[in-house]
Amino acid sequence: MSEENVVYIGNKPVMNYVLAVVTQMNGGTTEVVLKARGRAISRAVDVAEIVRNRFIPDVGVGDIQISTEEIVGNEGTATNVSAIEIQICKE
Amino acid sequence: MSEENVVYIGNKPVMNYVLAVVTQMNGGTTEVVLKARGRAISRAVDVAEIVRNRFIPDVGVGDIQISTEEIVGNEGTATNVSAIEIQICKE
Repeated sequence: MSEENVVYIGNKPVMNYVLAVVTQMNGGTTEVVLKARGRAISRAVDVAEIVRNRFIPDVGVGDIQISTEEIVGNEGTATNVSAIEIQICKE
Repeated sequence: MSEENVVYIGNKPVMNYVLAVVTQMNGGTTEVVLKARGRAISRAVDVAEIVRNRFIPDVGVGDIQISTEEIVGNEGTATNVSAIEIQICKE
């Protein structure tokens, strides 16, 4: 899968990411992966649910993976943060 | 599955829920389901990751489901909120 099909979820409003996914899907992409870390995880779930329920009904949520990533801060201290990957695919 | 095996994730500190899961697992339960809504979703992912990485290494994350739930407020207005269910099982 090319990197173009990945939507990274950050701190922008939810609808920005929904629009990104819908645009990709309407452009012919059949699979998009949402990636998020930390507190953006709940926003990633919101994006998947809004796309599915309001915009593209024939889209399904595929595999969901969770993991832990290590982030090294400016002072060299490492902290662990949870991450999620949500696969969205046209059925 | 009995309701005892469900841990509802709310706004308490993460370690409270980790302790609840670890206690159930050490008591012989082989499967626990974490349920969370809204902003507690990222905390549920944290709980699953901390249990797996720090406390019970032979525990795996099974099925993860996301959904939308309708919450009716005090004034009768309905709002949608995303929800997650994370299955944790002993391998």
